[in-house]
Amino acid sequence: MISWKNLDTVKAYEQLKQLKGKVNLADVMAGENGAKRVKEYSVPMAAGMAYNYAAKQVDEDVLSALAELAKEAQLTEKYEALYNGDVINTGEKRLVLHQLTRGQLGNDVVADGVNKREFYVAQQKKVADFANKVHAGEITNAAGEKFTTVVQIGIGGSDLGPRAMYLALENWARQNNTFYMEAKFISNVDPDDAASVLKGIDVSRSLFVLVSKSGTTLETLTNESFVKNALKNAGLDPAKHMVAVTSETSPLAQSKDYLAAFFMDDYIGGRYSSTSCVGGAVLSLAFGPEVFDRFLNGASEEDKLAANPDLRHNPAMLDALIGVYERNVQGYPATAVLPYSQALSRFPAHLQQLDMESNGKSVNRFGEPVSYVTGPVIFGEPGTNGQHSFYQLLHQGTDIVPLQFVGFRRNQAGMDVDIQGSTSQQKLCANVAAQIMAFACGKKDENPNKNFDGGRPSSIIIGDQLTPEALGALLAHFENKVMFQGFVWNLNSFDQEGVQLGKVLAKRVLAHETDGALKEYSDLLDI
Amino acid sequence: MISWKNLDTVKAYEQLKQLKGKVNLADVMAGENGAKRVKEYSVPMAAGMAYNYAAKQVDEDVLSALAELAKEAQLTEKYEALYNGDVINTGEKRLVLHQLTRGQLGNDVVADGVNKREFYVAQQKKVADFANKVHAGEITNAAGEKFTTVVQIGIGGSDLGPRAMYLALENWARQNNTFYMEAKFISNVDPDDAASVLKGIDVSRSLFVLVSKSGTTLETLTNESFVKNALKNAGLDPAKHMVAVTSETSPLAQSKDYLAAFFMDDYIGGRYSSTSCVGGAVLSLAFGPEVFDRFLNGASEEDKLAANPDLRHNPAMLDALIGVYERNVQGYPATAVLPYSQALSRFPAHLQQLDMESNGKSVNRFGEPVSYVTGPVIFGEPGTNGQHSFYQLLHQGTDIVPLQFVGFRRNQAGMDVDIQGSTSQQKLCANVAAQIMAFACGKKDENPNKNFDGGRPSSIIIGDQLTPEALGALLAHFENKVMFQGFVWNLNSFDQEGVQLGKVLAKRVLAHETDGALKEYSDLLDI
Repeated sequence: MISWKNLDTVKAYEQLKQLKGKVNLADVMAGENGAKRVKEYSVPMAAGMAYNYAAKQVDEDVLSALAELAKEAQLTEKYEALYNGDVINTGEKRLVLHQLTRGQLGNDVVADGVNKREFYVAQQKKVADFANKVHAGEITNAAGEKFTTVVQIGIGGSDLGPRAMYLALENWARQNNTFYMEAKFISNVDPDDAASVLKGIDVSRSLFVLVSKSGTTLETLTNESFVKNALKNAGLDPAKHMVAVTSETSPLAQSKDYLAAFFMDDYIGGRYSSTSCVGGAVLSLAFGPEVFDRFLNGASEEDKLAANPDLRHNPAMLDALIGVYERNVQGYPATAVLPYSQALSRFPAHLQQLDMESNGKSVNRFGEPVSYVTGPVIFGEPGTNGQHSFYQLLHQGTDIVPLQFVGFRRNQAGMDVDIQGSTSQQKLCANVAAQIMAFACGKKDENPNKNFDGGRPSSIIIGDQLTPEALGALLAHFENKVMFQGFVWNLNSFDQEGVQLGKVLAKRVLAHETDGALKEYSDLLDI
Repeated sequence: MISWKNLDTVKAYEQLKQLKGKVNLADVMAGENGAKRVKEYSVPMAAGMAYNYAAKQVDEDVLSALAELAKEAQLTEKYEALYNGDVINTGEKRLVLHQLTRGQLGNDVVADGVNKREFYVAQQKKVADFANKVHAGEITNAAGEKFTTVVQIGIGGSDLGPRAMYLALENWARQNNTFYMEAKFISNVDPDDAASVLKGIDVSRSLFVLVSKSGTTLETLTNESFVKNALKNAGLDPAKHMVAVTSETSPLAQSKDYLAAFFMDDYIGGRYSSTSCVGGAVLSLAFGPEVFDRFLNGASEEDKLAANPDLRHNPAMLDALIGVYERNVQGYPATAVLPYSQALSRFPAHLQQLDMESNGKSVNRFGEPVSYVTGPVIFGEPGTNGQHSFYQLLHQGTDIVPLQFVGFRRNQAGMDVDIQGSTSQQKLCANVAAQIMAFACGKKDENPNKNFDGGRPSSIIIGDQLTPEALGALLAHFENKVMFQGFVWNLNSFDQEGVQLGKVLAKRVLAHETDGALKEYSDLLDI
């Protein structure tokens, strides 16, 4: 029997609070004990990766308390309930089924009379068939020419995740001869966004993927019109250049304005939709359905690991609980995501949405205010770029910011150069290793301006190479981390009521139904 | 006589702390009083812009206390000392002269026997002449063809600022027929970064701008070799495709490996170098020297406004002090930068460096630990994209995050579309107006999950259009804001000792001179 409890009613939380400041990171990471920690505080992930938490402020006592917390908060049981089809998104009375797009962990899930795993697989197959026909030249433009570019039109989860995934695999696919079409993305209602993308492509050879679950997202419909105008101005028939990704009940679903329609449903939130056809269409068109399958397999393997009730063998749960310790016990307000991989340049932006939109909430799943802090601010840029930017604050600022590193032994593009006795890839890896230790141990200096206190916690996910499987595993790891944290904080991580008020007021501005300050701002902006 | 004091020794700070929580934003922004605030709490900026702080948690009492703080902390006098050539960067014993690259506010500044204003102007002229010759086809590749692409190789301040500025003006320049060459940027030591850029360009028609003040930045020299290899492999002479931006004393300065060398000096920090030839070379090549001049003029005008001792007429000082109130009195740990302009997509990344590298410090300018918090975490993405991402946390999260909006009445590219009775630009502007009010006033709802408490402060910079002048003014505004905050916190905002330790350890890893945990991490990463 599952009991949904606030964090501050869980006994293990009291125990955990007693362990505030328990671990002196500079001490435990020094010498041979440090080496031992790096070996031991590591848990395997899918695709040959590992989550290493040696440089986190934990020891056996903290880990035991976290394991007790996981047990008392019934994290494994709640995950089971989720993948077996319980109504976990209580506010919107919806199932939460994104894991089912890439595998089935439990019972058959039937909703609205449909076996949902079969539904997702069928949609994925439809996407694969379509992509194969485009690549084979069976679906072409009116002149019989192959499409060379795919443009995703979507915003939020229909943009950030798929865009981050595309950028993550672009070099890999070129190098592995699975690169079929370049992908571009239009998201912002700022007309300069669409204008800029359209200027850089040959619209006659472009296929547009319109993504809106409801079929009513204002930014997306506006950008669709923008694109249709451009197609018409080029003497082209928009219906021969567009596909839709939407729900079966949306106005776009049966429209003749699209070459094809691929379906998602209400059980997959936007920020969790990269493994549904929201990500599937653009990624299958860009890299081929086989690559998308490999991406799904990586995610599916990671989902399985998240079902392990043993905290020490469950990377997502461990990451989640260490994060709760840092946020609620240690009191750190933000977390930085620092991939040492240029291919992951937009992965932090995806995680920003995933995490902050899921757990940036002040009421629990029953709508009652919580009296503890929840989701942190998430930000990040790729290393080594960040080192020459905001790392100053991370090393010597007055607030401690926990860090989440990601690194790979091998690069993707297969080009490298040897300078001063090492390759670029070696320099990249040397930097991330060095940073972990600099943050953890610091360095005493008699000049206080050059002194580093250390004691700044980090973890690192290490993989061999950023392959489709590794990317899928990374994506699922963070989805599952956020899910577990939502369970601990007793939140509904799957709605986003906080985005509604702004939409309502914006409509009022456009209808000129404003007064007071809102009218003043509208006037200042010439609306 | 200037007295450098810690914030907690300034009397006005005690007074300010008494005003914690003084202003209920939802109350003061409601009704006609709200409208009055929007009209009154606005201060003109350069290029026809205005800084509007109506939706900040300030009133006449708070503003008076801030004015007193500004006076007691001698902000105007310190700025004067800076632009008159005092050694403000005490740690490195350097002058701080970035404002002098775009105008002269005070006395002649002579350093190392050189009038520095004349030096910066001369470098700028050298850049302009070179760019004009490239555009005119007087400087070409070996085959006599015009260069079509400029690629900046640099990291940190040699990348983030210039890249953000380039993206900010790309559409504007195309629309205004001042677009000469496309610009690309290589920064990360990850070899996939350079590989990816090189795959997308015609190297035979590309001009590379190598930017390193010291001439020793490892990432940049490594990427230079990467590029030189690519040029050689294409049968080209690298020396005919590269220019250097460096200091006169660097090994690059007199090298025959470059077509030309443009100089900066130690008095301009990387993150403050967009208006020096670090930004000047790439921006003049991309958009023409006239556009770069207009950009400098906007910055120069803004610098003049920052010299006004009257807080209520000094946008940068006001922004800085409200930020100090939010950070040190209200206790907010982060600030979000939210430009409603796709062209400013990388402006938040630039500000992240500018702010966090300048003021993310725990010791004052004399090297003594401070006992108050300093620079906040800075993050952001363009609206409306952010609305569909992390705004959930901003609206309903447990922490309050102050917001810095930017908006323009007109877009840049001159293309727009009318849907449901409004243009995209109107929708964009309606959204930012709506968000300010949603954050400030919230909305009561009996369903706590749909309830918005409001009380979340924001400011907005409103302009007519993102022109070169407006961009220069924006850049200078934030530089000056950060400078004033550094004065208030009594920091040296112009060094960055916090980035050193990681560099030292990375070298040790590459030399295989490691033991303990660092050796373990190195092994895990196959270095």
